[in-house]
Amino acid sequence: MPDTLTKLAELFNRFPGIGPRQARRFVYFLLAAPRSFREELARGILELSKIIHTCTECQRFFSPARGATLCPLCADPTRDRSTLMVVEKDVDLENVEKSRGFTGTYFILGGTVPILEKNPEERIHLKKLEGLIAHRAKEGLTEVVLALSLTTEGESTEEFLKEHLTPLAEKYGFKISTLGRGLSTGLELEYSDPETIKNALKNRQ
Amino acid sequence: MPDTLTKLAELFNRFPGIGPRQARRFVYFLLAAPRSFREELARGILELSKIIHTCTECQRFFSPARGATLCPLCADPTRDRSTLMVVEKDVDLENVEKSRGFTGTYFILGGTVPILEKNPEERIHLKKLEGLIAHRAKEGLTEVVLALSLTTEGESTEEFLKEHLTPLAEKYGFKISTLGRGLSTGLELEYSDPETIKNALKNRQ
Amino acid sequence: MPDTLTKLAELFNRFPGIGPRQARRFVYFLLAAPRSFREELARGILELSKIIHTCTECQRFFSPARGATLCPLCADPTRDRSTLMVVEKDVDLENVEKSRGFTGTYFILGGTVPILEKNPEERIHLKKLEGLIAHRAKEGLTEVVLALSLTTEGESTEEFLKEHLTPLAEKYGFKISTLGRGLSTGLELEYSDPETIKNALKNRQ
Amino acid sequence: MPDTLTKLAELFNRFPGIGPRQARRFVYFLLAAPRSFREELARGILELSKIIHTCTECQRFFSPARGATLCPLCADPTRDRSTLMVVEKDVDLENVEKSRGFTGTYFILGGTVPILEKNPEERIHLKKLEGLIAHRAKEGLTEVVLALSLTTEGESTEEFLKEHLTPLAEKYGFKISTLGRGLSTGLELEYSDPETIKNALKNRQ
Repeated sequence: MPDTLTKLAELFNRFPGIGPRQARRFVYFLLAAPRSFREELARGILELSKIIHTCTECQRFFSPARGATLCPLCADPTRDRSTLMVVEKDVDLENVEKSRGFTGTYFILGGTVPILEKNPEERIHLKKLEGLIAHRAKEGLTEVVLALSLTTEGESTEEFLKEHLTPLAEKYGFKISTLGRGLSTGLELEYSDPETIKNALKNRQ
Repeated sequence: MPDTLTKLAELFNRFPGIGPRQARRFVYFLLAAPRSFREELARGILELSKIIHTCTECQRFFSPARGATLCPLCADPTRDRSTLMVVEKDVDLENVEKSRGFTGTYFILGGTVPILEKNPEERIHLKKLEGLIAHRAKEGLTEVVLALSLTTEGESTEEFLKEHLTPLAEKYGFKISTLGRGLSTGLELEYSDPETIKNALKNRQ
Repeated sequence: MPDTLTKLAELFNRFPGIGPRQARRFVYFLLAAPRSFREELARGILELSKIIHTCTECQRFFSPARGATLCPLCADPTRDRSTLMVVEKDVDLENVEKSRGFTGTYFILGGTVPILEKNPEERIHLKKLEGLIAHRAKEGLTEVVLALSLTTEGESTEEFLKEHLTPLAEKYGFKISTLGRGLSTGLELEYSDPETIKNALKNRQ
Repeated sequence: MPDTLTKLAELFNRFPGIGPRQARRFVYFLLAAPRSFREELARGILELSKIIHTCTECQRFFSPARGATLCPLCADPTRDRSTLMVVEKDVDLENVEKSRGFTGTYFILGGTVPILEKNPEERIHLKKLEGLIAHRAKEGLTEVVLALSLTTEGESTEEFLKEHLTPLAEKYGFKISTLGRGLSTGLELEYSDPETIKNALKNRQ
């Protein structure tokens, strides 16, 4: 593989889930693709810098209309601003929206806090979250939902957030809640772990 | 493969999850195993008929002490007999016990009821369940927990049971509950289905 | 799970490819099966000891007619006795027969010789193989085909056999051959290892 | 997901082996990446058009020194020009080179010919191959190796090429060969298909 191609393959190799072999396939795919496809792709990548901003409230990526600083969701007057859901990343927000089960607003943490992390504040937007909460508190915030994944990292992030947000919750008088645990779609009782069964029993209705 | 072996392989082929190739491997494994292993195995299989009975209350398999008709769990006076959990099969009961989250008693349905099944009563112990409920009702039954898997078959079985048990619930005054739905251990928000997210939100705490 | 069942599950757990969970499923499957199925299965397992012998020549398992000591294949006068193929186990022989590409006779090694194995002769029927070769040499043996798998263990077994059979080959004047290497059905050039490509090139035709 | 992002995700969705979900992950990955990474990537993609040419002989992609029209391999005077290996694509050539088992030159077909394809000549560089063969014939070409994958498409491509190249082979007096078939590294005899076993037997040595 010529040097130019190797270099490009190395860039693709850093993409999530892409190993060296598939990275090289990408390069050969691009070589064989029409020039117009390569140009459209390169333009799309470069435009990200120009077009995409982060919403000043929820921190998610969006493509603003001229001068807008809020994403369509944060700018939507019909969303319930008394409830704030904290999620790890943009796709989590999109997935919750798909469920049509939530009418409040969101905050994107931008990452998780692994156990024993020395500089947790560099990994997530904690200061911005605290700022948003202080601001919303004046507008009648009643609940912050911590919607993290049920993985080890998700749970340690939840712990970290609870610690830091509890003083605010007491000061401003809102509730901190977490997503309900139980059986999820497709799960068989035979293969469920004890923790899930215990929660499914506790939350039975 | 000689006929005798082919015939034995066909029997193993009926075991759950065993295809023809693995069935033949079993036969060659047994051929190469010591004679004592084969004898112990055959004896163990034959003894099932003699030693194992089904509990007259919960219908699960157990190995009774002389004359006993109840399994140790149904015979245990410390179990809470006001709550009855209905599960599909023995391993489900074992798995719930492992969670140490339930102190009531159980009933093994013995199967599931697929949608549009013509003779659902042949697939599950419905009459025995109704009999047990009538019996327990006199002893203060307050709740029947339908603990089915969250699969298509599990859900249609739940529907079927609700239909048939609701008249009894009204007559005897007990509650019919189902396991709580929500995020289960290990689940990432990004990969959760809308139904699970909706339930996790509803059950948030 | 009652003790009797646990014990039976432990026996199934020793079957090839069967973990503890599936072993327990087997037990519950047998419990739910008709008594006649269990009896047929136990009888089939016990009959192995009575009915199955190993062929005195090729060492494979077979179910002999009264008094027979040779399996049908070794007894077949139309098989070419000048070529002897050495394979690891019975299923390998069956698979070669399916290819209809071999008309000679076989010898079942009964195992493989891992690298650095201290007592290789306890793992394979070396003495019996040497005896058969000495016997066949008088009847015009011209070739011994070592048909081992192309795995690490297969290759170290091939090495071991070559070392031990070369003196016999020189003494009796037969050839030792191995299976041809190259591309096998379904293989893509892109994913072939260098050794396979080298051999496929050497054997091109 | 904003429109700009959706559009970019759709482009990634066309990459080999990339589904819609991973395509969106790529976009979020790029959004979170430093601007310099995006710029380097876009530049690398655009440079493909400028820097990469196809070798006029073997048709593979390469990055030419000023004015060069042959790739380093075709320009290498130490390569044996009496043997020409025909492969499907660039990575196949790279893989054969890794095996260090071939010292001749190559030709990249640029695709395969599925069975019943109506316009096979639009899928592969047949005319260019015939031209190269005519040219090489004058320089002492003795063998053309058809090195296709052992898949259905690879085999039908081999058939197609044999049909079209046989007249040339007769006219110019070179041999058409194919890669040797047999056991490939890692293959177990038990799981080999009849065709592979038959070839491994035929090619035994």
